[in-house]
Amino acid sequence: MPSKTTAESLDNFLKEVFSTLEMPKVDAEWISETLVQAELKGVSSHGVIRMPQYTKRLELSLVNPKPKITTIKDAGSLALLDGDNGMGQIVSRDAMQDCIQRAKEHNVGVVFVKESNHFGAAATYTVQAAKEGMIGICTTTTIPIMAPSGGKEAKVGNNPISIAFPSEPMMVLDMALSNVARGYVIEAARAGKSIPESWGKDEKGNPTTDPNEVLKSSLLSSIAEHKGSGLSIAIDAVLASISGSRNSSDIIGINDFSGKSGVTHLFIAINIESLTPVKEFSMAANVFLNMLRNTEKADGIEKIYMPGEIENELEAERKKNGFTISKERLNELDEIADRLHISPLERTSND
Amino acid sequence: MPSKTTAESLDNFLKEVFSTLEMPKVDAEWISETLVQAELKGVSSHGVIRMPQYTKRLELSLVNPKPKITTIKDAGSLALLDGDNGMGQIVSRDAMQDCIQRAKEHNVGVVFVKESNHFGAAATYTVQAAKEGMIGICTTTTIPIMAPSGGKEAKVGNNPISIAFPSEPMMVLDMALSNVARGYVIEAARAGKSIPESWGKDEKGNPTTDPNEVLKSSLLSSIAEHKGSGLSIAIDAVLASISGSRNSSDIIGINDFSGKSGVTHLFIAINIESLTPVKEFSMAANVFLNMLRNTEKADGIEKIYMPGEIENELEAERKKNGFTISKERLNELDEIADRLHISPLERTSND
Repeated sequence: MPSKTTAESLDNFLKEVFSTLEMPKVDAEWISETLVQAELKGVSSHGVIRMPQYTKRLELSLVNPKPKITTIKDAGSLALLDGDNGMGQIVSRDAMQDCIQRAKEHNVGVVFVKESNHFGAAATYTVQAAKEGMIGICTTTTIPIMAPSGGKEAKVGNNPISIAFPSEPMMVLDMALSNVARGYVIEAARAGKSIPESWGKDEKGNPTTDPNEVLKSSLLSSIAEHKGSGLSIAIDAVLASISGSRNSSDIIGINDFSGKSGVTHLFIAINIESLTPVKEFSMAANVFLNMLRNTEKADGIEKIYMPGEIENELEAERKKNGFTISKERLNELDEIADRLHISPLERTSND
Repeated sequence: MPSKTTAESLDNFLKEVFSTLEMPKVDAEWISETLVQAELKGVSSHGVIRMPQYTKRLELSLVNPKPKITTIKDAGSLALLDGDNGMGQIVSRDAMQDCIQRAKEHNVGVVFVKESNHFGAAATYTVQAAKEGMIGICTTTTIPIMAPSGGKEAKVGNNPISIAFPSEPMMVLDMALSNVARGYVIEAARAGKSIPESWGKDEKGNPTTDPNEVLKSSLLSSIAEHKGSGLSIAIDAVLASISGSRNSSDIIGINDFSGKSGVTHLFIAINIESLTPVKEFSMAANVFLNMLRNTEKADGIEKIYMPGEIENELEAERKKNGFTISKERLNELDEIADRLHISPLERTSND
């Protein structure tokens, strides 16, 4: 049965897992924080659902628990880094930090980092920049999960795009180029639920309501079909070609234990202060976002949310009241605890 | 009745129009070229359909035919320019040129330019960067043309995004954040045709097939609803807040002769050579794009196109055989010729 737990309990458990898998303490803390955040914010597709794969990859040495992230090319505001096959969350934290530093020195930072892995929620890294008074932008290669417009083979990624900037509350956009993230299809499949037709396609390229058919074909539907496809192709070509690394078509997914993933990310930071005081920027953004919140609502809508706000509301509620973890997730986490000989996740109650 | 004309004839006519309206020769040539390109590439929403408004705004001094584009803030790789209310095509050409120069010096260029106007096809400017061996990216504020997700008032723009980079042929993505560009709705309305339900909404926020209802409500449908809306909000907040200028909600459209438009654009250029030889970048991109062209086709699809290729095919054909201009467009152009006392557009034949 599902059980309730708290952010603190989950955080303690995850830190123990990653420490046991030889990640340095500060890195184990960071990755645990990102996963707890995803659960608190209701972005379950980037939460503990990925733990079986993350742990197995570390155990099989397919991911480096102690990466030495190096600079391949330093071009001032622009750089190419090597993530040394570290966990995507660790490589990305450091690459965005490097990017922010470049933006402090050169007003803009543009950092490509290759030899990385699945980085979870893209918003994690743009928030780093926004907290420093910057506009943060990021994207990444992914596994092949959509067909190019007109095709029926999974050859393009659903490359998420995140943008964050300092406003009150902080505006945080995080969107994949598929109508939904693959994690939600996985979740539906594991829960034995059907999915809306707009989510994905079967192996013949036809819409389907069976999540297992979508997972078999690896064909999510791209936003506005040719537009999502085109944007994905553009992002993918740029990231892979400039870094001399793999396109999404050749990325090894976290479920495939045959080799390293070879993911490339892009981070951009624009130092607002170089053009205008951050306070003025934020005030202007706040006025705009408030105006939008107060536009007339469509039928059946109770509240208009700006990007990131639904997640913020949920986070506040879940921090206060704890949250439920499904039976499937608990079983997976218990199995990991068992394998690593550590204490299982602490439950506050059965739901 | 519709008539055939050639690129050369249209170019000559448009140059004459803009010269007569006091634009410097080189600027009249540039803007004519961009409009002819749009017609050749079949992007008619950005072609001569805008001439009645462009000319009227110049005649009413709502647009400055001889802008002095100045630098408000020079921060090396980053800058904020003032477009001095010039035609969007002129301001954007110069701003992207400035951006490219910054990328040559600092490896990356990020240029915001305010006090501009409707800039036509976004691809025009990213192609400038790609021709210099760079990755070009651009976006802009627009008129309010979509509702924020959950709302039913036109308060957000459909901010187009263009990305181009050097490949063979050059990959050129140009997409608005609405399912279709407003120009196609205008075209359907003028032609008395109905439109698909996915294009836009009526004043109650319900889908409609009547283009006039969409023009009345100013409510285009955003790509993937909350995703297009979110991306637009993020872009708009950044461009307006950093430049201290208007959000799309307050932009005065080219059909509204009550004042200056106050459009802001963003241009980004990344100097590929700073990280890897352009030749290697292009080779890698070519391999990727070729692989995508050759993926298995969905039912009923004859060819898989990469972004920009449908337009290239059309351009080659139209350059060779000329192209047709509709009766409505011809009437508008003849009226302009009449008003400015210049020769009308030369037709090669009636269609």
